[in-house]
Amino acid sequence: MAVDDRLRTVDEHLATVLDGVGTLEPIELTLLDAQGLLLAENVSTDFPLPSFDNSAMDGYAVRAVDTLDASREQPVRLQVVGDIAAGASSRSGMGPGLAMRIMTGAPIPSGADAVIPLEDTDRGMARVEIHRPVQSGECLRRAGEDLTAGSPALAAGAALGPQQLALLAAIGRDRVVVRPRPRVIILSTGSELIEVGHRPGFGEVIDSNSYMIAAAAKDAGADARRIGIVPDDHTKLLDALENQLLRADILVTSGGVSMGAYDVVKEALSEIGTVDFMRVAMQPGKPQGFGHLGNGIPIFCLPGNPVSSLVSFEAFVRPAIRKLLGKRSLHRATVQATALESAKSPHGVRQYRRGVLHRESAGGYSVSFIGGPGSHLIASLALSNCLVVIDEDVTEVTAGKPVTVMPLLLSNR
Amino acid sequence: MAVDDRLRTVDEHLATVLDGVGTLEPIELTLLDAQGLLLAENVSTDFPLPSFDNSAMDGYAVRAVDTLDASREQPVRLQVVGDIAAGASSRSGMGPGLAMRIMTGAPIPSGADAVIPLEDTDRGMARVEIHRPVQSGECLRRAGEDLTAGSPALAAGAALGPQQLALLAAIGRDRVVVRPRPRVIILSTGSELIEVGHRPGFGEVIDSNSYMIAAAAKDAGADARRIGIVPDDHTKLLDALENQLLRADILVTSGGVSMGAYDVVKEALSEIGTVDFMRVAMQPGKPQGFGHLGNGIPIFCLPGNPVSSLVSFEAFVRPAIRKLLGKRSLHRATVQATALESAKSPHGVRQYRRGVLHRESAGGYSVSFIGGPGSHLIASLALSNCLVVIDEDVTEVTAGKPVTVMPLLLSNR
Repeated sequence: MAVDDRLRTVDEHLATVLDGVGTLEPIELTLLDAQGLLLAENVSTDFPLPSFDNSAMDGYAVRAVDTLDASREQPVRLQVVGDIAAGASSRSGMGPGLAMRIMTGAPIPSGADAVIPLEDTDRGMARVEIHRPVQSGECLRRAGEDLTAGSPALAAGAALGPQQLALLAAIGRDRVVVRPRPRVIILSTGSELIEVGHRPGFGEVIDSNSYMIAAAAKDAGADARRIGIVPDDHTKLLDALENQLLRADILVTSGGVSMGAYDVVKEALSEIGTVDFMRVAMQPGKPQGFGHLGNGIPIFCLPGNPVSSLVSFEAFVRPAIRKLLGKRSLHRATVQATALESAKSPHGVRQYRRGVLHRESAGGYSVSFIGGPGSHLIASLALSNCLVVIDEDVTEVTAGKPVTVMPLLLSNR
Repeated sequence: MAVDDRLRTVDEHLATVLDGVGTLEPIELTLLDAQGLLLAENVSTDFPLPSFDNSAMDGYAVRAVDTLDASREQPVRLQVVGDIAAGASSRSGMGPGLAMRIMTGAPIPSGADAVIPLEDTDRGMARVEIHRPVQSGECLRRAGEDLTAGSPALAAGAALGPQQLALLAAIGRDRVVVRPRPRVIILSTGSELIEVGHRPGFGEVIDSNSYMIAAAAKDAGADARRIGIVPDDHTKLLDALENQLLRADILVTSGGVSMGAYDVVKEALSEIGTVDFMRVAMQPGKPQGFGHLGNGIPIFCLPGNPVSSLVSFEAFVRPAIRKLLGKRSLHRATVQATALESAKSPHGVRQYRRGVLHRESAGGYSVSFIGGPGSHLIASLALSNCLVVIDEDVTEVTAGKPVTVMPLLLSNR
C-alpha cells in the first residue's frame, strides 16, 4: 500500500488505470443479449444467402425467350400452369411457352429464367398477357448472390447492432461469441450515509453517488450493480468487498476517503489487495485510489463529493469500461464551443467545469458554466449537460473564445 | 380497410403515423429503472440540501476571529476539544479559543464559524497550530445552499441520466413518475420463415427481420419483445395478434405482404382493427401498412425485405417510439458528407441508400454507397453504418458533392 505524494497528471493516472485493466474472456450469448457488444469470433456462413434462386417480385415466372416480342399493344399470351407461394418446399418445373404465378421470395421453377412483375401483365389466372419483353435473369435473386457458402459474414470486432444481428440470424446463428459487458459493482462508503427512502436525521446524508455511478456505468455499457452503503468500519467494508470479488470485473467505491475514514478504507483494502492512493492534478477529483483486489480485480476509490465522483468516473472509470468492452474509442467525443463567460483555471491542473451546452441556431455550440466551485452542489450538477475541459496549460478562459466541451450524452437505455 | 392507391410522400405518411400514436400513461418506477426516461412530474425537495451546515474539508472547526493574527511564523495555538466525524448524529459545541478536528461532510459545531484545512495547520491532536487567518464561513457548506426546503429540484420533461438520478436520491426520492418505455411487440409473417437455429431446407428462409426490428426498437428506447414467426394463416395470425394486444403499445409485423399473403394479413387485421395499406414514395419501403388494432393500439406492417424493413423502421416506427417516450427530437441527427461516388434517384421518390460513413482526417465526413439495389442483401446491410437520404427533388448525386447522411449510431445497450 503506497501513498504516492507526487501529483500525477490526468494522463499519467489514466495510463496507469488502462494498464491495470486487462481483458475479459469472451462469452457466448443469444443474439438479442449480444446487442451493443463486439463480436469476438470470425463468423462465416455454412450455406449460401439466399439459399435458393427466388423471385424479387410478385409476378409470373417465365422463360425470357418467350417474351421477346411482347408489347402492351401486342401482348404475348402464356398458359399459367401453377402458383408458387413463398415457403414452397419443393422446386416446381415448367416447360417452354408456359408461366407460373410466383410470389416474392418464392423459389424459381426449373425451366424459368426470369420473372415478369404483375404490373407488366394483365394479372391473368389461367392465361396471362405479358406486356413487355423480359431479360433473362430479371427479377431473380440468385442463390449465393448475397453470400456464398463458406464465405465470411462478420469479422471479430464488429459491433452488433440491428443489421449485424439480422445477418447472424439469417445465416443460422442463434448464439455468438462476444466480449461481455464488464460487471461493475458500486458501493458507497461513509458512516454518514443512509439509504434513499428515509428522511435524513441530523448529520445524515442520503447516498446518491452509488445511484449516479451505477447509472453512469450502465450508460457506458457495463452490467452495473449497486450494492449500496458500507459504513466506515474495517470488518464490514472487508466483508462487503470480499463478497463481491467473485462477481465483479471492476469495483468502484465512492466517498469515505477523508481523514479518519480514509485510513479505514486503506487498511481494509491492504488486507485483500494492493491499492495506491494518490493525488491527481485535476479539479475536482484530486484524491484518487486505484489498484487491484483478490485475483487482480481493478478497484477505483473515487472521492465522495458528487461532482468529484462523476468527473473521476468520466476521466478514469468510463475509459476502463470501454477498454473491457473492446471499443476502439475509449473517450467521449468532444466539441468546440464558444464560452459565454470568462473563467480562471490554475496552471498545471486540468479543470472540469460543469456546463450547459447550447446549439446555436447559426450552427456551432456555445457553453455557459453552471454550479460554481462547490463539488457538493448536486442540484446544479443535475442541470448540466456537459463538462468543459480546461487543459493544464490554460489558465484563463475568455468569453467569446472557443473551449473544449465533453457533452455527457445519454443513451436511451 | 382501405387500400389507398395514391402514392403518399414520406412526410405525409409520417404525419399520419405520428397523428395515430397517442401518449402513454406515466408510471412510477424505481430510480435505476427510470434511467434514460423523461420525468413526468415536477419534483421538489422537502428538506434543504445540504440538510445541515457541514465542513467542505478535513481540518479544524474554529472561530474565525481567533485566527486573525495567525501566520506560519507566528501560528495561533488552539486547544483541540474533540473530533467530529462524518455521520455524527448530534451537534457538538465549542467555546471561544478552542478548536475541534472535523472531517469533510461532518456537522459544524455550534460556536464555530469556519474550518481551517489540515494543510494550513500542524495537524496537532491536543493542540493545533493555525498557520493563517481564516475568514468567517470559509470551508463551510451551509444548509440549503444547494437547494432550500420546498424548492423545485427537477421539472417534468427532464431526461433522467446519472446526475439527475443522483439529485433525486439526494432529496429522498426512491421512485419517480416517468414516461414509460413503449412496449413494442415484433412478429414476422411468412410461411417460408423458419426459426434461427435450424438449417433452412429448400424454399425456407430463416427469420432475421424480427431480430433486427427488436434490436432497433430497443435501441430507440422501447421495451421490445420479439414474438417470432406467424405463418400466412388467417387464424394463427389473428390468434397471435389478439394475444399480444393487451401487452403492446405498438405492434410491428414485417413481411408476408406479398400477393397471396398480403390478403391473409389484410383480412385478419380487418377483423380486429382498421389498417390502411398504401404505397409511399420512397425507395426501398414503398408498400406500408399502418392502422390500429383492438383498443387503438398502433400497428405497423412493414415490408419483408430486410433493407426495406429497416428503412421503414427508421422512417416511421422510430419517430413513433420517440414520440411515446416524450423526446423532443423524434428524428436522428443527420450530417452532411461528401459523396464518394455518383448515383441517380428517381424524381418524386425519397431514396435511402445504405452507406459507409467515414470521418475524414482533415475534418468532415465522406460517404460511399454499399449494397446495390437489391433490398434483400443483408450481408452488405450489415456492413453499412448509415443511410444516405436523397430527397424527392434530387435526381442525381454527384461524386465530390455533399449529401445528407443519417448515421445509424448505436447505443451501447
